[in-house]
Amino acid sequence: MFKKFKIPEATVGRLTAYSRYLKEADEKGISTVSSQQIAKATGVTPAQVRKDLAYFGEFGTRGVGYNPRELYNYIMKILGLDRRWPVIIIGAGRLGAALAMYGGFAERGFDIVGIFDVDPAKIGNKVGEIEIRPLQELKEKVKDLSIKLGIVAVPAASAQEVVDFMVDCGIKGIINFAPANISVPEGIVLRRVDLASQLEYLTFHLGESR
Amino acid sequence: MFKKFKIPEATVGRLTAYSRYLKEADEKGISTVSSQQIAKATGVTPAQVRKDLAYFGEFGTRGVGYNPRELYNYIMKILGLDRRWPVIIIGAGRLGAALAMYGGFAERGFDIVGIFDVDPAKIGNKVGEIEIRPLQELKEKVKDLSIKLGIVAVPAASAQEVVDFMVDCGIKGIINFAPANISVPEGIVLRRVDLASQLEYLTFHLGESR
Repeated sequence: MFKKFKIPEATVGRLTAYSRYLKEADEKGISTVSSQQIAKATGVTPAQVRKDLAYFGEFGTRGVGYNPRELYNYIMKILGLDRRWPVIIIGAGRLGAALAMYGGFAERGFDIVGIFDVDPAKIGNKVGEIEIRPLQELKEKVKDLSIKLGIVAVPAASAQEVVDFMVDCGIKGIINFAPANISVPEGIVLRRVDLASQLEYLTFHLGESR
Repeated sequence: MFKKFKIPEATVGRLTAYSRYLKEADEKGISTVSSQQIAKATGVTPAQVRKDLAYFGEFGTRGVGYNPRELYNYIMKILGLDRRWPVIIIGAGRLGAALAMYGGFAERGFDIVGIFDVDPAKIGNKVGEIEIRPLQELKEKVKDLSIKLGIVAVPAASAQEVVDFMVDCGIKGIINFAPANISVPEGIVLRRVDLASQLEYLTFHLGESR
Protein backbone atom coordinates (compact mmCIF):
# COMPACT_ATOMS: atom_id res chain seq x y z
CA MET A 1 0.00 0.00 0.00
CA PHE A 2 2.84 2.38 0.83
CA LYS A 3 6.49 2.16 1.70
CA LYS A 4 7.10 1.68 5.37
CA PHE A 5 10.87 1.75 5.45
CA LYS A 6 12.76 4.82 6.57
CA ILE A 7 9.72 6.40 8.26
CA PRO A 8 11.14 8.07 11.37
CA GLU A 9 9.86 6.79 14.69
CA ALA A 10 8.91 10.35 15.67
CA THR A 11 6.69 10.63 12.57
CA VAL A 12 4.61 7.70 13.78
CA GLY A 13 4.12 9.41 17.13
CA ARG A 14 3.13 12.67 15.45
CA LEU A 15 0.61 10.91 13.20
CA THR A 16 -1.16 9.88 16.40
CA ALA A 17 -1.28 13.50 17.55
CA TYR A 18 -2.50 14.70 14.13
CA SER A 19 -5.23 12.06 14.08
CA ARG A 20 -6.53 13.15 17.51
CA TYR A 21 -6.76 16.74 16.35
CA LEU A 22 -8.40 15.76 13.04
CA LYS A 23 -11.02 13.71 14.88
CA GLU A 24 -11.83 16.68 17.11
CA ALA A 25 -12.05 19.00 14.08
CA ASP A 26 -14.33 16.58 12.25
CA GLU A 27 -16.57 16.22 15.30
CA LYS A 28 -16.88 20.01 15.42
CA GLY A 29 -18.11 19.91 11.82
CA ILE A 30 -15.04 21.59 10.33
CA SER A 31 -14.67 20.66 6.65
CA THR A 32 -11.15 21.95 5.91
CA VAL A 33 -8.03 22.32 8.02
CA SER A 34 -4.64 23.72 7.00
CA SER A 35 -1.24 22.31 7.86
CA GLN A 36 -0.82 25.47 9.96
CA GLN A 37 -3.86 24.54 12.05
CA ILE A 38 -2.73 20.93 12.48
CA ALA A 39 0.73 22.20 13.42
CA LYS A 40 -0.55 24.70 15.95
CA ALA A 41 -2.82 22.16 17.64
CA THR A 42 -0.08 19.56 17.96
CA GLY A 43 2.90 21.77 18.75
CA VAL A 44 5.01 21.23 15.63
CA THR A 45 5.82 23.35 12.56
CA PRO A 46 3.60 23.36 9.43
CA ALA A 47 6.63 22.14 7.44
CA GLN A 48 6.89 19.15 9.76
CA VAL A 49 3.21 18.28 9.21
CA ARG A 50 3.65 18.40 5.43
CA LYS A 51 6.86 16.38 5.60
CA ASP A 52 5.30 13.71 7.81
CA LEU A 53 2.29 13.33 5.53
CA ALA A 54 4.44 13.31 2.38
CA TYR A 55 5.89 9.94 3.43
CA PHE A 56 2.55 8.39 2.64
CA GLY A 57 1.49 10.14 -0.55
CA GLU A 58 -0.26 13.32 -1.58
CA PHE A 59 -3.01 14.71 0.60
CA GLY A 60 -5.24 17.73 0.59
CA THR A 61 -5.70 20.48 -1.94
CA ARG A 62 -2.92 23.01 -2.43
CA GLY A 63 -3.94 26.37 -1.02
CA VAL A 64 -7.09 24.91 0.52
CA GLY A 65 -6.12 22.26 3.03
CA TYR A 66 -7.23 18.86 4.19
CA ASN A 67 -10.63 17.36 4.86
CA PRO A 68 -10.32 16.30 8.52
CA ARG A 69 -12.38 13.11 8.21
CA GLU A 70 -10.61 11.87 5.08
CA LEU A 71 -7.16 12.56 6.48
CA TYR A 72 -8.13 11.04 9.84
CA ASN A 73 -9.32 7.84 8.18
CA TYR A 74 -6.21 7.66 6.07
CA ILE A 75 -3.87 8.15 9.04
CA MET A 76 -5.76 5.53 11.04
CA LYS A 77 -5.23 3.11 8.16
CA ILE A 78 -1.52 3.99 8.02
CA LEU A 79 -1.28 3.28 11.75
CA GLY A 80 -3.07 -0.06 11.33
CA LEU A 81 -6.00 1.27 13.36
CA ASP A 82 -8.78 0.62 10.85
CA ARG A 83 -9.52 -2.46 12.99
CA ARG A 84 -9.51 -3.33 16.71
CA TRP A 85 -6.57 -5.15 18.32
CA PRO A 86 -6.71 -7.52 21.29
CA VAL A 87 -3.82 -6.97 23.72
CA ILE A 88 -2.57 -8.94 26.72
CA ILE A 89 -0.60 -7.69 29.72
CA ILE A 90 2.02 -9.76 31.53
CA GLY A 91 2.46 -8.74 35.14
CA ALA A 92 -0.47 -7.92 37.41
CA GLY A 93 1.44 -5.66 39.78
CA ARG A 94 0.56 -2.03 40.31
CA LEU A 95 1.73 -0.88 36.89
CA GLY A 96 0.18 -3.83 35.02
CA ALA A 97 -3.14 -3.27 36.76
CA ALA A 98 -3.03 0.47 36.03
CA LEU A 99 -2.35 -0.24 32.37
CA ALA A 100 -5.20 -2.77 32.24
CA MET A 101 -7.57 -0.05 33.46
CA TYR A 102 -6.11 2.77 31.34
CA GLY A 103 -8.99 4.17 29.29
CA GLY A 104 -6.81 5.55 26.52
CA PHE A 105 -6.22 2.14 24.93
CA ALA A 106 -9.83 1.20 24.08
CA GLU A 107 -10.44 4.66 22.66
CA ARG A 108 -7.79 3.97 19.99
CA GLY A 109 -8.93 0.42 19.23
CA PHE A 110 -6.87 -1.61 21.69
CA ASP A 111 -8.81 -4.05 23.88
CA ILE A 112 -7.04 -5.47 26.92
CA VAL A 113 -8.31 -9.07 26.81
CA GLY A 114 -6.08 -10.73 29.40
CA ILE A 115 -3.67 -10.15 32.25
CA PHE A 116 -1.23 -12.86 33.34
CA ASP A 117 1.07 -13.35 36.30
CA VAL A 118 3.19 -16.05 37.91
CA ASP A 119 2.30 -15.12 41.50
CA PRO A 120 -0.22 -17.71 42.82
CA ALA A 121 -1.54 -15.09 45.27
CA LYS A 122 -2.71 -12.94 42.36
CA ILE A 123 -4.29 -15.62 40.15
CA GLY A 124 -8.07 -15.41 40.20
CA ASN A 125 -8.18 -11.79 41.40
CA LYS A 126 -9.86 -9.33 39.10
CA VAL A 127 -8.57 -6.13 37.54
CA GLY A 128 -11.76 -4.38 36.46
CA GLU A 129 -13.59 -7.06 34.50
CA ILE A 130 -10.50 -9.14 33.75
CA GLU A 131 -9.43 -12.11 35.85
CA ILE A 132 -5.70 -12.52 36.41
CA ARG A 133 -4.65 -15.86 34.90
CA PRO A 134 -1.48 -17.95 35.27
CA LEU A 135 1.23 -17.23 32.69
CA GLN A 136 1.12 -20.85 31.49
CA GLU A 137 -2.28 -20.16 29.94
CA LEU A 138 -0.87 -17.46 27.67
CA LYS A 139 -0.23 -19.68 24.63
CA GLU A 140 -3.79 -20.96 24.49
CA LYS A 141 -5.24 -17.45 24.87
CA VAL A 142 -2.96 -16.01 22.18
CA LYS A 143 -4.00 -18.80 19.81
CA ASP A 144 -7.73 -18.60 20.59
CA LEU A 145 -7.98 -14.85 20.07
CA SER A 146 -5.22 -14.42 17.45
CA ILE A 147 -3.47 -11.94 19.74
CA LYS A 148 -0.45 -10.19 18.26
CA LEU A 149 0.26 -7.50 20.88
CA GLY A 150 1.49 -7.72 24.45
CA ILE A 151 2.61 -5.40 27.23
CA VAL A 152 5.34 -6.36 29.70
CA ALA A 153 4.97 -4.95 33.21
CA VAL A 154 7.17 -7.34 35.20
CA PRO A 155 10.35 -6.67 37.21
CA ALA A 156 13.50 -6.03 35.15
CA ALA A 157 15.10 -9.28 36.28
CA SER A 158 12.42 -11.47 34.69
CA ALA A 159 11.66 -9.32 31.64
CA GLN A 160 13.84 -11.17 29.10
CA GLU A 161 12.47 -14.55 30.14
CA VAL A 162 8.89 -13.28 29.91
CA VAL A 163 9.52 -11.71 26.49
CA ASP A 164 11.06 -14.96 25.19
CA PHE A 165 7.96 -16.80 26.37
CA MET A 166 5.61 -14.27 24.76
CA VAL A 167 7.43 -14.64 21.43
CA ASP A 168 7.22 -18.41 21.79
CA CYS A 169 3.47 -18.05 22.34
CA GLY A 170 3.08 -16.13 19.08
CA ILE A 171 3.13 -12.48 20.20
CA LYS A 172 4.56 -10.26 17.41
CA GLY A 173 4.64 -6.80 18.96
CA ILE A 174 5.72 -6.01 22.51
CA ILE A 175 5.75 -2.90 24.68
CA ASN A 176 8.25 -3.32 27.50
CA PHE A 177 7.78 -1.23 30.64
CA ALA A 178 10.50 -3.08 32.58
CA PRO A 179 13.70 -1.04 32.92
CA ALA A 180 15.80 -3.64 31.11
CA ASN A 181 17.44 -3.90 27.68
CA ILE A 182 15.64 -6.82 26.05
CA SER A 183 16.40 -8.56 22.77
CA VAL A 184 13.90 -10.17 20.42
CA PRO A 185 14.26 -12.28 17.26
CA GLU A 186 14.06 -10.75 13.75
CA GLY A 187 10.48 -9.97 12.80
CA ILE A 188 9.30 -9.14 16.31
CA VAL A 189 8.66 -5.45 17.04
CA LEU A 190 9.75 -4.37 20.50
CA ARG A 191 9.28 -0.94 22.00
CA ARG A 192 10.59 0.05 25.36
CA VAL A 193 8.80 2.61 27.47
CA ASP A 194 11.26 3.89 30.02
CA LEU A 195 9.28 6.01 32.44
CA ALA A 196 12.36 7.38 34.18
CA SER A 197 13.88 8.40 30.86
CA GLN A 198 10.87 10.68 30.30
CA LEU A 199 11.92 12.61 33.40
CA GLU A 200 15.54 12.56 32.22
CA TYR A 201 14.43 14.32 29.07
CA LEU A 202 13.08 17.10 31.29
CA THR A 203 16.18 17.41 33.46
CA PHE A 204 18.34 17.42 30.32
CA HIS A 205 16.37 20.33 28.93
CA LEU A 206 15.98 22.23 32.17
CA GLY A 207 19.75 22.28 32.23
CA GLU A 208 19.85 23.53 35.78
CA SER A 209 23.31 22.36 36.63
CA ARG A 210 24.89 23.96 33.56
CA MET B 1 29.20 23.42 29.78
CA PHE B 2 28.19 22.18 26.33
CA LYS B 3 25.78 23.16 23.63
CA LYS B 4 22.33 21.81 24.15
CA PHE B 5 20.61 23.09 21.07
CA LYS B 6 19.88 20.77 18.17
CA ILE B 7 20.40 17.62 20.24
CA PRO B 8 17.79 15.17 18.86
CA GLU B 9 15.19 13.97 21.32
CA ALA B 10 16.07 10.36 20.44
CA THR B 11 19.69 10.99 21.46
CA VAL B 12 18.58 11.88 24.98
CA GLY B 13 16.64 8.62 25.21
CA ARG B 14 19.61 6.63 23.97
CA LEU B 15 21.96 8.29 26.48
CA THR B 16 19.74 6.79 29.18
CA ALA B 17 20.14 3.34 27.64
CA TYR B 18 23.91 3.75 27.28
CA SER B 19 24.21 4.86 30.88
CA ARG B 20 22.37 1.78 32.14
CA TYR B 21 24.71 -0.49 30.21
CA LEU B 22 27.80 1.43 31.34
CA LYS B 23 26.73 1.13 34.96
CA GLU B 24 26.30 -2.64 34.58
CA ALA B 25 29.70 -2.91 32.87
CA ASP B 26 31.37 -0.89 35.61
CA GLU B 27 29.73 -3.01 38.33
CA LYS B 28 31.11 -6.12 36.64
CA GLY B 29 34.60 -4.58 36.92
CA ILE B 30 35.04 -4.03 33.17
CA SER B 31 37.59 -1.25 32.55
CA THR B 32 37.09 -0.63 28.82
CA VAL B 33 34.10 -0.92 26.49
CA SER B 34 33.96 -0.27 22.76
CA SER B 35 31.21 1.59 20.89
CA GLN B 36 30.43 -1.82 19.34
CA GLN B 37 29.72 -3.26 22.79
CA ILE B 38 27.60 -0.30 23.84
CA ALA B 39 25.73 -0.54 20.53
CA LYS B 40 25.10 -4.27 20.84
CA ALA B 41 23.82 -3.98 24.41
CA THR B 42 21.42 -1.17 23.56
CA GLY B 43 20.22 -2.24 20.12
CA VAL B 44 21.68 0.54 17.99
CA THR B 45 24.60 0.80 15.54
CA PRO B 46 28.16 1.65 16.69
CA ALA B 47 28.04 4.70 14.39
CA GLN B 48 24.95 5.91 16.24
CA VAL B 49 26.72 5.57 19.60
CA ARG B 50 29.69 7.59 18.36
CA LYS B 51 27.42 10.23 16.78
CA ASP B 52 25.33 10.60 19.97
CA LEU B 53 28.42 11.02 22.14
CA ALA B 54 30.04 13.44 19.69
CA TYR B 55 27.36 16.03 20.49
CA PHE B 56 28.94 16.45 23.89
CA GLY B 57 32.64 16.38 23.16
CA GLU B 58 35.39 13.83 22.70
CA PHE B 59 35.33 10.64 24.71
CA GLY B 60 37.40 7.52 24.99
CA THR B 61 40.66 6.53 23.38
CA ARG B 62 40.70 5.81 19.67
CA GLY B 63 41.18 2.09 19.03
CA VAL B 64 40.79 1.31 22.74
CA GLY B 65 37.36 2.43 23.88
CA TYR B 66 35.70 4.06 26.82
CA ASN B 67 36.09 3.69 30.54
CA PRO B 68 32.58 2.70 31.65
CA ARG B 69 32.59 4.60 34.94
CA GLU B 70 33.97 7.82 33.45
CA LEU B 71 31.53 7.77 30.55
CA TYR B 72 28.65 6.85 32.88
CA ASN B 73 29.42 9.79 35.17
CA TYR B 74 29.70 12.13 32.23
CA ILE B 75 26.40 11.01 30.69
CA MET B 76 24.64 11.35 34.05
CA LYS B 77 25.94 14.90 34.24
CA ILE B 78 24.72 15.61 30.70
CA LEU B 79 21.29 14.29 31.68
CA GLY B 80 21.26 16.46 34.81
CA LEU B 81 21.35 13.34 36.98
CA ASP B 82 24.41 14.18 39.05
CA ARG B 83 21.89 15.19 41.74
CA ARG B 84 18.52 13.93 43.00
CA TRP B 85 15.24 15.55 41.87
CA PRO B 86 12.02 15.80 43.88
CA VAL B 87 8.94 15.10 41.74
CA ILE B 88 5.21 15.52 42.39
CA ILE B 89 2.30 13.67 40.78
CA ILE B 90 -1.08 15.28 40.11
CA GLY B 91 -3.90 12.73 40.00
CA ALA B 92 -4.17 9.89 42.50
CA GLY B 93 -6.17 7.56 40.29
CA ARG B 94 -4.93 4.16 39.25
CA LEU B 95 -2.24 5.48 36.92
CA GLY B 96 -1.05 8.18 39.31
CA ALA B 97 -0.81 5.67 42.15
CA ALA B 98 1.05 3.18 39.94
CA LEU B 99 3.53 5.90 38.94
CA ALA B 100 4.00 6.92 42.58
CA MET B 101 5.00 3.34 43.38
CA TYR B 102 7.09 2.77 40.24
CA GLY B 103 10.54 1.71 41.43
CA GLY B 104 12.34 2.87 38.29
CA PHE B 105 12.22 6.56 39.25
CA ALA B 106 14.17 6.45 42.51
CA GLU B 107 16.83 4.30 40.90
CA ARG B 108 17.61 7.17 38.49
CA GLY B 109 17.51 9.91 41.11
CA PHE B 110 13.84 10.94 41.02
CA ASP B 111 12.04 11.01 44.36
CA ILE B 112 8.25 11.16 44.32
CA VAL B 113 7.64 13.56 47.21
CA GLY B 114 3.94 14.29 46.82
CA ILE B 115 0.72 13.21 45.16
CA PHE B 116 -2.21 15.59 44.79
CA ASP B 117 -5.85 15.22 43.80
CA VAL B 118 -9.09 17.21 43.82
CA ASP B 119 -11.31 14.30 44.86
CA PRO B 120 -12.19 14.74 48.58
CA ALA B 121 -12.69 10.97 48.84
CA LYS B 122 -9.02 10.39 48.05
CA ILE B 123 -7.44 13.09 50.23
CA GLY B 124 -5.73 11.59 53.26
CA ASN B 125 -5.40 8.11 51.74
CA LYS B 126 -1.89 6.79 51.34
CA VAL B 127 -0.05 5.57 48.26
CA GLY B 128 2.88 3.66 49.71
CA GLU B 129 4.36 6.13 52.20
CA ILE B 130 2.86 9.22 50.58
CA GLU B 131 -0.38 10.80 51.71
CA ILE B 132 -2.66 12.14 48.98
CA ARG B 133 -3.06 15.90 49.51
CA PRO B 134 -5.51 18.45 48.07
CA LEU B 135 -4.33 20.19 44.90
CA GLN B 136 -4.57 23.59 46.61
CA GLU B 137 -1.55 22.66 48.71
CA LEU B 138 0.66 22.26 45.64
CA LYS B 139 2.13 25.79 45.61
CA GLU B 140 3.36 25.58 49.18
CA LYS B 141 4.92 22.16 48.63
CA VAL B 142 6.64 23.25 45.41
CA LYS B 143 8.07 26.28 47.17
CA ASP B 144 9.15 24.41 50.32
CA LEU B 145 11.01 21.67 48.47
CA SER B 146 12.09 23.69 45.38
CA ILE B 147 10.31 21.19 43.16
CA LYS B 148 10.80 21.64 39.42
CA LEU B 149 9.28 18.44 38.02
CA GLY B 150 5.71 17.18 37.91
CA ILE B 151 3.75 14.32 36.40
CA VAL B 152 0.15 14.73 35.19
CA ALA B 153 -2.08 11.68 35.55
CA VAL B 154 -5.53 13.27 35.42
CA PRO B 155 -8.37 12.81 32.89
CA ALA B 156 -7.83 14.48 29.50
CA ALA B 157 -10.62 17.00 30.12
CA SER B 158 -8.90 18.59 33.11
CA ALA B 159 -5.29 18.24 31.94
CA GLN B 160 -4.82 21.77 30.55
CA GLU B 161 -6.26 23.38 33.67
CA VAL B 162 -4.02 21.25 35.90
CA VAL B 163 -0.93 22.04 33.81
CA ASP B 164 -1.70 25.79 33.95
CA PHE B 165 -1.95 25.52 37.72
CA MET B 166 1.32 23.58 37.99
CA VAL B 167 3.11 26.23 35.94
CA ASP B 168 1.58 28.90 38.15
CA CYS B 169 2.93 27.01 41.19
CA GLY B 170 6.47 27.08 39.78
CA ILE B 171 6.81 23.68 38.09
CA LYS B 172 9.25 23.91 35.15
CA GLY B 173 9.17 20.44 33.61
CA ILE B 174 6.04 18.35 33.11
CA ILE B 175 5.33 14.82 31.95
CA ASN B 176 1.75 14.56 30.73
CA PHE B 177 0.12 11.12 30.72
CA ALA B 178 -3.33 12.48 29.88
CA PRO B 179 -4.32 11.84 26.24
CA ALA B 180 -4.67 15.55 25.47
CA ASN B 181 -2.68 18.12 23.50
CA ILE B 182 -1.56 20.61 26.12
CA SER B 183 0.18 23.94 25.67
CA VAL B 184 2.66 25.55 28.05
CA PRO B 185 4.37 28.96 28.13
CA GLU B 186 7.88 29.51 26.75
CA GLY B 187 10.53 28.15 29.08
CA ILE B 188 8.45 25.27 30.41
CA VAL B 189 9.44 21.80 29.19
CA LEU B 190 6.49 19.54 28.49
CA ARG B 191 6.66 15.93 27.43
CA ARG B 192 3.66 13.87 26.57
CA VAL B 193 3.65 10.15 27.20
CA ASP B 194 0.89 8.70 25.08
CA LEU B 195 0.51 5.09 26.15
CA ALA B 196 -1.82 4.20 23.27
CA SER B 197 0.61 5.66 20.76
CA GLN B 198 3.19 3.13 21.93
CA LEU B 199 0.86 0.38 20.74
CA GLU B 200 0.22 2.31 17.51
CA TYR B 201 3.93 2.19 16.82
CA LEU B 202 3.68 -1.60 16.98
CA THR B 203 0.62 -1.88 14.73
CA PHE B 204 2.25 0.51 12.26
CA HIS B 205 5.31 -1.72 12.07
CA LEU B 206 3.49 -5.02 12.12
CA GLY B 207 1.80 -3.76 8.97
CA GLU B 208 -0.76 -6.51 9.08
CA SER B 209 -3.39 -4.83 6.97
CA ARG B 210 -0.95 -4.05 4.14
